Parts: sequence; structure tokens; C-alpha cells
Amino acid sequence: MKNTFGQSVAVTLFGESHGPAIGAVLDGLAPGCAVSEEAIRKQLDRRRPQGNTGTHRREPDPFQLLSGVYQGKTTGTPLAIVIPNTSQRSADYENDGAYPARPSHADFAARCKYHGFEDRHGGGHFSGRLTAALVAAGAVALDILKGKDISIATHIARCAGIDDAPLPLEDPAALAALGEMSFPVVDRLAGERMEEAILAAREDRDSVGGILETAVLGLPAGVGEPWFDTMESVLAHMLFAVPAVKGVEFGAGFALADLRGSQANDPLRVRDGKIVTTSNHSGGVNGGITNGMPVTFRCAVKPTASIFQPQDTVDLTTGEETTLHLKGRHDPAIVHRAAAVVDAVTALTVLDLLALRYGTDWMAG
Amino acid sequence: MKNTFGQSVAVTLFGESHGPAIGAVLDGLAPGCAVSEEAIRKQLDRRRPQGNTGTHRREPDPFQLLSGVYQGKTTGTPLAIVIPNTSQRSADYENDGAYPARPSHADFAARCKYHGFEDRHGGGHFSGRLTAALVAAGAVALDILKGKDISIATHIARCAGIDDAPLPLEDPAALAALGEMSFPVVDRLAGERMEEAILAAREDRDSVGGILETAVLGLPAGVGEPWFDTMESVLAHMLFAVPAVKGVEFGAGFALADLRGSQANDPLRVRDGKIVTTSNHSGGVNGGITNGMPVTFRCAVKPTASIFQPQDTVDLTTGEETTLHLKGRHDPAIVHRAAAVVDAVTALTVLDLLALRYGTDWMAG
Amino acid sequence: MKNTFGQSVAVTLFGESHGPAIGAVLDGLAPGCAVSEEAIRKQLDRRRPQGNTGTHRREPDPFQLLSGVYQGKTTGTPLAIVIPNTSQRSADYENDGAYPARPSHADFAARCKYHGFEDRHGGGHFSGRLTAALVAAGAVALDILKGKDISIATHIARCAGIDDAPLPLEDPAALAALGEMSFPVVDRLAGERMEEAILAAREDRDSVGGILETAVLGLPAGVGEPWFDTMESVLAHMLFAVPAVKGVEFGAGFALADLRGSQANDPLRVRDGKIVTTSNHSGGVNGGITNGMPVTFRCAVKPTASIFQPQDTVDLTTGEETTLHLKGRHDPAIVHRAAAVVDAVTALTVLDLLALRYGTDWMAG
Amino acid sequence: MKNTFGQSVAVTLFGESHGPAIGAVLDGLAPGCAVSEEAIRKQLDRRRPQGNTGTHRREPDPFQLLSGVYQGKTTGTPLAIVIPNTSQRSADYENDGAYPARPSHADFAARCKYHGFEDRHGGGHFSGRLTAALVAAGAVALDILKGKDISIATHIARCAGIDDAPLPLEDPAALAALGEMSFPVVDRLAGERMEEAILAAREDRDSVGGILETAVLGLPAGVGEPWFDTMESVLAHMLFAVPAVKGVEFGAGFALADLRGSQANDPLRVRDGKIVTTSNHSGGVNGGITNGMPVTFRCAVKPTASIFQPQDTVDLTTGEETTLHLKGRHDPAIVHRAAAVVDAVTALTVLDLLALRYGTDWMAG
Repeated sequence: MKNTFGQSVAVTLFGESHGPAIGAVLDGLAPGCAVSEEAIRKQLDRRRPQGNTGTHRREPDPFQLLSGVYQGKTTGTPLAIVIPNTSQRSADYENDGAYPARPSHADFAARCKYHGFEDRHGGGHFSGRLTAALVAAGAVALDILKGKDISIATHIARCAGIDDAPLPLEDPAALAALGEMSFPVVDRLAGERMEEAILAAREDRDSVGGILETAVLGLPAGVGEPWFDTMESVLAHMLFAVPAVKGVEFGAGFALADLRGSQANDPLRVRDGKIVTTSNHSGGVNGGITNGMPVTFRCAVKPTASIFQPQDTVDLTTGEETTLHLKGRHDPAIVHRAAAVVDAVTALTVLDLLALRYGTDWMAG
Repeated sequence: MKNTFGQSVAVTLFGESHGPAIGAVLDGLAPGCAVSEEAIRKQLDRRRPQGNTGTHRREPDPFQLLSGVYQGKTTGTPLAIVIPNTSQRSADYENDGAYPARPSHADFAARCKYHGFEDRHGGGHFSGRLTAALVAAGAVALDILKGKDISIATHIARCAGIDDAPLPLEDPAALAALGEMSFPVVDRLAGERMEEAILAAREDRDSVGGILETAVLGLPAGVGEPWFDTMESVLAHMLFAVPAVKGVEFGAGFALADLRGSQANDPLRVRDGKIVTTSNHSGGVNGGITNGMPVTFRCAVKPTASIFQPQDTVDLTTGEETTLHLKGRHDPAIVHRAAAVVDAVTALTVLDLLALRYGTDWMAG
Repeated sequence: MKNTFGQSVAVTLFGESHGPAIGAVLDGLAPGCAVSEEAIRKQLDRRRPQGNTGTHRREPDPFQLLSGVYQGKTTGTPLAIVIPNTSQRSADYENDGAYPARPSHADFAARCKYHGFEDRHGGGHFSGRLTAALVAAGAVALDILKGKDISIATHIARCAGIDDAPLPLEDPAALAALGEMSFPVVDRLAGERMEEAILAAREDRDSVGGILETAVLGLPAGVGEPWFDTMESVLAHMLFAVPAVKGVEFGAGFALADLRGSQANDPLRVRDGKIVTTSNHSGGVNGGITNGMPVTFRCAVKPTASIFQPQDTVDLTTGEETTLHLKGRHDPAIVHRAAAVVDAVTALTVLDLLALRYGTDWMAG
Repeated sequence: MKNTFGQSVAVTLFGESHGPAIGAVLDGLAPGCAVSEEAIRKQLDRRRPQGNTGTHRREPDPFQLLSGVYQGKTTGTPLAIVIPNTSQRSADYENDGAYPARPSHADFAARCKYHGFEDRHGGGHFSGRLTAALVAAGAVALDILKGKDISIATHIARCAGIDDAPLPLEDPAALAALGEMSFPVVDRLAGERMEEAILAAREDRDSVGGILETAVLGLPAGVGEPWFDTMESVLAHMLFAVPAVKGVEFGAGFALADLRGSQANDPLRVRDGKIVTTSNHSGGVNGGITNGMPVTFRCAVKPTASIFQPQDTVDLTTGEETTLHLKGRHDPAIVHRAAAVVDAVTALTVLDLLALRYGTDWMAG
């Protein structure tokens, strides 16, 4: 299946940037889970460009719940969310004008797949705008998980070469605060320096990337499958579908490659009658299955491909080499906006694996 | 689905390390594809521990094709491969003796999931031995891809802190040679230094990790889906199911996080009448879809968790803290053996996406 | 997955009868297929109640294509269709009043599954109204199949005990005409008698059922899988999801149980250089795979469960026995309206199996 | 996916009639479920031809559990069952001799799909012999369901035009007895007349068909999905994969087509504090979801296609018309043997839907 992901809890995504609307269908929720439009709005706001470091454009993202919610609670049948597009293509806009492919965008790959029938306005189905529908669906999943004492926190671990402080895994309030921030960092000063670096990149008509770090707390041990639906596999599947993510690592990740086993292994101890590991280089997953420690991972987010410097490219209409002079409004960084998307897909994925393990009613219990 | 992966071409894995046999069922192959038992044997040999840097144990890995092959060609119906286990548990071996969990192994997570009913001998269903069945199935896929001029090459990009030379993407013969090596490196001297480092780790009763780098050449442009079955998503799903893999990055991966857009973007040009990119930081994938450039990725392989130094742990039978003194034979490094597994799962995944795109008969054409 | 069906071409259904809207997402279409809003409207009209034998209510079924179509052609990305509901529940309508379960409706089963959180107005997610979204999606699939010379024809083989003439399989124009009729019968006089019987049932505040017979012509031989995705299995999966269908048989179906092999077997002959069978008791499928003959099947449609006679039932709010006196508008027969739904799900299913077999671009070729 | 079915509990089937072995992989079982080799053997015996009405051939069906069972209990990892074939094709047996397609067998359809690469000996992958592996896997599922007080009973409702007495739904012992019989009938005399009719057909070098009727008792209400994984849809999917099944109906099935709503509807009443229906024309399913009444269905089994009378056919090697004179041993009826297969696939399907609903540990609870 293509634009649908999940087994017990599944999300289906549709829409194009400049079509009538984008949307998502979230299926497999238990009946009786509270759905807060306010919580959806809050997550959508996190994803919206805002302040100095985003584009100037305002995307109000009004959404409508078409189904699956009755009197503020899930019915147990598919929850459909639609977000109308405010800037739609005009009917007479043609697909056959000059078409300089944007380097490191999907333009050329999409042309190879869709033979020119793709709706290319604003990126079409590939537009980052579609993540708004994912974020809306994920907001519902995040709330359900919260009700089961499972929380997800993501911060910008690194941006433009500047590191944030580590995630304060022992401080639930600080972690929860990250989920409210539109530029989620632990160290405010580091965050300010990152924002300055983003503005500097904009000055240079350039862009920057970064690394998002996520922790999932409260997950029961014993979730995931040895082959092939490991917790890492299923999370990575969804994370790599987030635009601009080009790397995913769990626990100590790539750094493990340079460690010896005696350094990398996580010793087990008993604490408060519970078996825990005293380090967490494994990122909470062994053999594909959660071990009760926080599930931690990092996503590499490449710099925004849309930059205003002239770029060598090929015109897909003529097949001839040309130079791209990009216009319009584009973020010099999307790493902070991607945080809301990573939280959303993480919530959707984790909820699916939990529903497979504990049944469909569990999440409402 | 749990131990089955793939949509048009699917593999199902079964078995435990010390049960009667392990095996795989490979379904969805076109009829009429040549199946070479020699090619399967060659890939199995690559995965086997051998020489100085592996364990001393010999695993002959004799296999049997139970179905799906007739007169040396696929029938189009499921191809089942079984590899009998030579060292089987004795019937009276009990599950209830002392059970010190091996740190950073699946022991504890498996206990949480299987409540003590898991077969723990030699790692049971979590044993790296199961990758033999994956490698055997992957060998068939590799051969089919070769017939379509699609090749996969993996080298040890880094081991114990020592770097190999880059993959010689312009030299098909050198790439093909990697697929024959049990310790696949481009720079022989680097390889020797890696092997020395592995032996040094063994001396210290320790282990080392590394990074595998893979290139898939010859893939048509236009394969993969924007959401959620991106080429990166589906590959990562399978790669994270390979034991010890804790990180996956495509193209320049995590390094992209520190680049600016002007550095990271891959310009498009026309070469020999074909649209190409002049750099490949994207790793051959944009918007989830192949762009015709080599698909490149790197996997972080953690150091072998089985080391001979005493380790703090908890006995899962008594629930009490204890010290693990591991016995038996264990590799001080598995990164080289994992190369065959990465090739196998890459071949299986790529073949599945191609069959979805071009139909089930395509691969035999 | 629950409300999604299909592997290469998949449909996702959402909505409740009295919520804001119902809809479907159709994913996996090739790019470049013509999408005719007129064709969708025509199929929706067939499903609408009309004339003497339907309810008096008018359902205009205006629909909107939210995505996946650009300049009248599929883009290759998900096609979302939304049909707003004209009669929506009022916000203050409560779920907790008297709730006499309608016998042989989903009311009681849904209560057991959704614990009272289901939206029960007008049947909610179980409403036959959701088939409108299926029919709209199916209309797109029907058109695509037509472009590949594959046609689907359904008639009311039997209604209220009255038989229609057999499907004129040799007369393509007559078959095509059935796809335009809102009461599709071969023998007009039989059709009139059926309509009279429906009106007589209405007089008696009762309802009638019937049998739909379908033929799929032009399907290539060699489509379907031996285990478990046989052509019959996948079609039956979808057909049994059509409300009121309680039986499905292929070819001679249940009548085969009383035949001897010598009567039931379909002899093979060569006609015009092509291998055919001289009878078609197998309904075009052997071993789960099409044999090139018309795929024929029949669906038993039970009488409308909503009747105006008083019925013994239980109030789901109080748990006490009560008598149901149904109000509102309800069809005394739905067999004719179900014909459009059967055509739709057949088209969706067949298209999926063809895309799996021949690849995703095939349908636009 | 092709030869794999199920979502939480999935079965994968492989093998050919005259290859080294057939087998099944059963994945998704909870850990700790008892596995009785005796119970597997008993079900395999039911499927074996025996006595007067079967073929004279003895198929001992020795099986081996390769994985997933440890000390008589499921481990929770895939359970692989292999059944070696005693009569294997010789290596030099060629595929290119005369090949008169057997009418109403898969021979011709398979040729269209597999282009001549199929292993055609004894029907290859299409052989009824593969149902032995399904029956073995189903035996494990049947036992697990029994532990949850869910039972499945199938009888030959009709054979060669002779009817059995109805299923004694109120008599658990009588139902359980059916599961032990190789010719399961309620009315012994009717059974004897059926066996006589089968022998008479053999005398005529012909074959007969019949109807199997099944009841699933003890299923909780609220299992199944409205669209598209209705209880009926998923069961029918599997039932139509059973060789020779050409029709499936639930509850009163096709007979409902001739009833009025007032006759067909099942009134609800309260009995012993539980809501029940006083009739069960719906077969225990409304809106796709179980209602707590017995789930009942009937399968039409066509007469054995292998008969000894000369038959018109086409030689697939030469493409010319010819006459088939079948040799070898073939049952004049398989309806009784199919009973064990129907029980098996019903158990597998029901267990999957229950695991989706209640989680993976439920079945061991």
C-alpha cells in the first residue's frame, strides 16, 4: 500500500499543495478516546512557519473533522481530517510551461514516476504542506498516548553546527514544555544562536539543516517484533517518510560503530524492584523489542532545498540545461517545524504497535 | 504481519538457533528466473565466520530448497529454503536454570514479550543465525537483479575507527569483487589494519563495531512512493531488522545536517542525453523516489554484544543482580559478516518495489 | 487494516450517515488516466433511490474531488472524493435516549464493538449511504477498465421470487446498457413484475430481497493467486463488505454441489486459435486464477432490514425488551441499488489484481 | 501478499505435490499456548483419503515442527510445519511431454500465469495436498480456540443430492464429535446413503460434490470490521482459497433472497440477562460484526474435477485438441475431506480477528 501506513492503527494521506484540500484518514482508534480540537490546533501551530526564522507567509491551517468523532470522543470508526488549501491553483494554469527542476527536490524523480501528469504546483503531493495533515492526525495519537502515560519529546539537538543541551529525561515538565514550543530547544541560549545562524543563512540566500532528537517515555517493555517489524524498523519507516529526513539512528547510533562492546553494552541492574539498564546506548530497544528504557532516536534533517541562489539545473519541459532563480517564500530552515512532524509520526507508529500488542480497546482503557 | 516483509515479493522467516532448522519462504518471484544453488552457497559462505577475525566454529550451512524451483528455475510459487541446525538443544534442556541476561542482547526484552516461553538457547529466534536464511533468500534476489543490470555492493566503510577508501562507483569490476569477499574492503591495507584491530579487541576479550556502506546501481528512476513507502523508508525498515544495525543514513546522511543548502543540493545536468545530478548527496532518492543516480546508504553496526569480560547484569530466573561470565565462541566483530546480510535485505527490498512498479513478470523478462 | 482494502490499488472509506461528510481515498492509480465527473455522477445516480420502488427521499449526492486529479487526468497520487451530507445531526442530539435496536441491522453488534461511542444516527458508519463513496471511487475504476476493454455488467437475476432472463454475454451493447440502468434487468417484463412485487411489499409495510448476477468480460487469463489471494477470494472479500450481501457464488456455484464431475467440468477447445472452455460452470476461475472466460458470480441480497411492521427488539439504552415501530423513509428493496455498488467493488478489486500483475503504469497504457 | 494470509495471526503456505516437501509457517501465536502433536495428527487423519469413499492411496502425512514450539508450548515466534512428500518427481522428469489440460483443474490457468515454468506434477502448488499443511496449522489454532471456549463444527449438509440432518447447535457433545469424524454427518443413515452415492459415482467413473455447513460457537460479540474486513469478508476470503469451494453463504444465505424482511429479520430478546436473537438468519453477523450468536455458513464444494471418463481438452504442449484419459488414483468425492480444511481455515481466520481485537497475548490467557 502506498499512502497508507499502519496495521491496527493506520493513517492514509492525500492532497496536493495547491489543490482544493489536503487531509488524512486515521483508522483503528478505539472508541471513546477524547479528541481535542484545541490539541490539534496547537500541534498545527507548531508546524506553521512563524517568527523570524520561518517564512513570512501565514498558513492559518483551519481544519475540519469529517468523521469518526462524536461529542468530542472517537467513535472507533475512521477519523477523517481535511485542511482546505487557501492558495489554490487556477483552473487554467498549465503544466506545460518552463519547468526548471529544483535541485534536491522531488521534481525530477516525480517526473520519472508520473510522466508529467503530476500536479507540480507548490510541490503538489510532495509538498511539505501535507505534513500538516499528518500533524493533525498525530495530535490525536499524542493525546491518546498521554492518557496512557506515554509521552514523546523532541528537541533540536543541533542546527547550523550549534548543539543544544541534552534532553532532560529526568524532568517530565521540561520535556512536556518542548511539545509546546515552535522552536524546541532545551538550552534557550543555544536556541537563540541557532536562530541567528538561520537568519544569517537567509541573508546569504541560503539554508541550514539540523538534527532532531526524540525520546519516547513510558513505553511498556516487550513491544515490537524480532523480524521484521522491529520497533526501530517501523519507526524508521515512518521517519524516513518525513520530508528532508536523510538519517535515523537509535540510542548512540553511529557513535556505536566506534565503541567497543565493553563501552557500548548497557549493564542491567535492579532499581526499585524493576530491571533497568544503567546506560541506554541501545535507545530502549534490543532485538527489535522495547526494554522499558526510553526509546531514543535522532533524525538528520537536510538543509531546505529551496534556496534563492542561482542553481544549475535542467528544464523538464525542454530537457535543456538552465539556471534556476527561485522566487516565492521559503524557509531558510525547517528543522524546527519538522519537530512537530516527527512527534506526530512517532505517536502514530507507537500507537499502532501498542494496539497490535494489547488490542484495539486498550488505548481507551 | 510480523515475520513477513514485502508486498509483491515477500519473505517470511522462521526458526530458532538450536531448534531443528531455520528457514525462509520467498514469495512473489516471477516464473522462469534462474536459481543457482552455487550463488546461494557463495552468499552463505560470506556470512559464515571464517579466518582469524571470526569465531573458530565452522557452520557448514547446508541448505535445501523445498519448493518453488523446478529444473533450476523459479516456478513462480513460493520458494522455501530450509537450513538444518547442526547443534540442536537436547530435549531435556530446561528453560528454568540460571539465566543471566546478556547486556544489549534481546534476552531481557524477549522475556518481557514472551513471558519466559521463548526458546533462549543460542538466542533462539533472535540469533544472528537466522540471517543465514535471509542471506539465502537474498542470494536469489541478487541474481535476479543482476539479470536486470542492477547491482548491489557493500564495503566496510569503517571498522574500529579505521576508514576504508570510498566505494569505486565508476569501476563495476571492483564493485562486483566486493560481493565475493568475506571481508569486503576497497583498500586492502585498510582492511588489514581493521583485522588487526579486531584481533586486538579479541585479545582484550572485547569487540568492535563499524559502518557498512552500500550502493545500488542500475535502479531505474521513478521507483518508490512519496508517502509512506519511500525507497528510504522501505529499505530502512529492512535494514533496521538486521541485528546490530543501530543507524541508517542515505546519501550524505547526518553530514547534511551541518551543510548549507547551497552545498547540499545536487545540481542537475544533461550528460549523454540523460538527466543526472553532478553530486549525489541525496543518495539517489528525492521525495522518496529514485532519481536514477546510485542509491547509497550507510548502516551503523554496533560492536558485538557478546564479550568475554565480566558484565553487570540481572538473572532473569531469580530477578537478582549478578555478573555474567560469557562462555562459548563469539565473534569480536560481525560488521563484515553483516555485509552479506545487508546485501541480501537490500536485494529483497529493491526487488519488491520493482515488482510493484513493473509487475510480477518483469523480473524474468 | 480496517477501512482500507487493496494492495496496489487501495480504497479507504470514511464517514457517517449524519456527520459532515462521507468519502473515499483511492490510491495506486496510474498517472494519466482520464477521470470523468460525468461518469462518477452517472454511477452515483444509479445508486440513488428513485422512482416508485425507491424511497421518496432525494439524495443529490454532490461530490468533490479533493486531490489526485489534475486537468481531468489522474496524477498518480491519492484521489480523494468527498460527498457532503445534507442532513446532518444536530449538535445537541444525544446518544442516550431510547435506543430500540433495529433487528438484523448492525445496531446491536456495533454497540458490542464500540461500547456506545458509535454515532448511531442513520446507521452512522454502517449506513448504506457510505456505499455512495465506494460507488464514486468505483466509477473511476470502471472507466479505467473500460479503456483496457474490460467491462463489468450486473443485472437483477432474481427479485421477490421473479427471475430475469440470463445475462446476454454475447451482446456487448446489451451488457453495457445494464450499466446505465437504475433497475438493471435483461427482460423488461420481468423487471416490471419485480417492481410490482416491490410495491406490493411496501403496501404490506415489508421488504424483499434478490440476487445480483455479474459478469466481468475481457479479463486476461492468468490473474489471481493460488493461495490465498485467489480471484474468488479477493472478490468475495469485497462483495461481502457490501451491505446486505449474505452469499456469493462463482460460476454455477451452489448448483455444482448437486452435479457430477462429468456435468460440472468445462471441456477445453480451440476456437479462433485461442483455448477456451465450451461451458463456464467454473465462472472463469480455476485454481484461483482467471482462465480467460468471463468471470461470473452471483450475490444474495437480503431483504431490507428496515420495515414498518412492529418488531420485537431490545432497547440498548435500558437493556429491556420493547417493540420497534420504525419511522422515516426506507426502501422496500435495495437489490437494484446494490447493483451499482457491486459493479464498483468489482472494478476496484479487479483493477488492484491487474495492477499487481502488470505493474502500476499498465492501466494508463 | 500472495501465499500469506492474516494480519495479527498469519499463515504462509509453500510446496508442490511432488517436490521435497510442503509446509506452512504460522506466525503471531501468543507464547505459552499448548501445541499437541496428537491433535495435529488427528486433523491430518481427517483430511486423508480413507475407507471406501476415498482413494486407495495411503498418505501417512508425517510432519515435523521446525520452529516455534518449545517443550510443548508456543514460543510466540513463527511455528513452521513441514510435511515431506513421499512420492517425489524424478529429477529427469521433463515438463515438455504431452500435457492434456485437465478440465476444471488449474492446469490451463496456471499455464497462462506461469508460462510453463510451473511444476505440474500432481498439480504442483495447486495440489489439494497443500491443504495438509493448512490443516496442520489449523489444528494448532483449533486447540487454542478450544482453550477459549470457542468451537468450530462442520458437517456434510448435502452430498450427491442427499441432505444431512441440521447441525445440533444445542448439543455440544454432538458438535464436538463431528470434529473427530472423517465423514462428518449428524444423521448416520444419511451419511451411509451419501457414501453409497459416492461409490455409485465411482462405478460410473464419475464424481460428486456437496455442501459443507459450519458453525462457530462461543465467539464474543463485537468482532469484525464494518468496511472492509467484515467477519464474513475475511472468512470468505479464506474459504474461497480452499480448493473446489465455489460458493459461500452466511446464515440463511441465498434463501434470504426469496424472503421478505418480516421473515428474514432476527428479533432481539433478553434471555438469561443476555441479548440474543430468537432466529439466526443473519448467521451471527450484522454489519460485518459478530452479534454473539453462532456464526454459521455453508460452502458449496464442486464435484472432484478428476474423473476417469474421457474428456475433451487441449494439449498445452502442442496447443491442439485432444482427449484426456485420466490415470492414477482420485477421489470420487472430496467434500468430506474438505471439512477438515474448512475447520482449519475457519480457526486461523477467527483467531486472527480475535488477536487483532484483543491483542496478541489474549489467546494464551
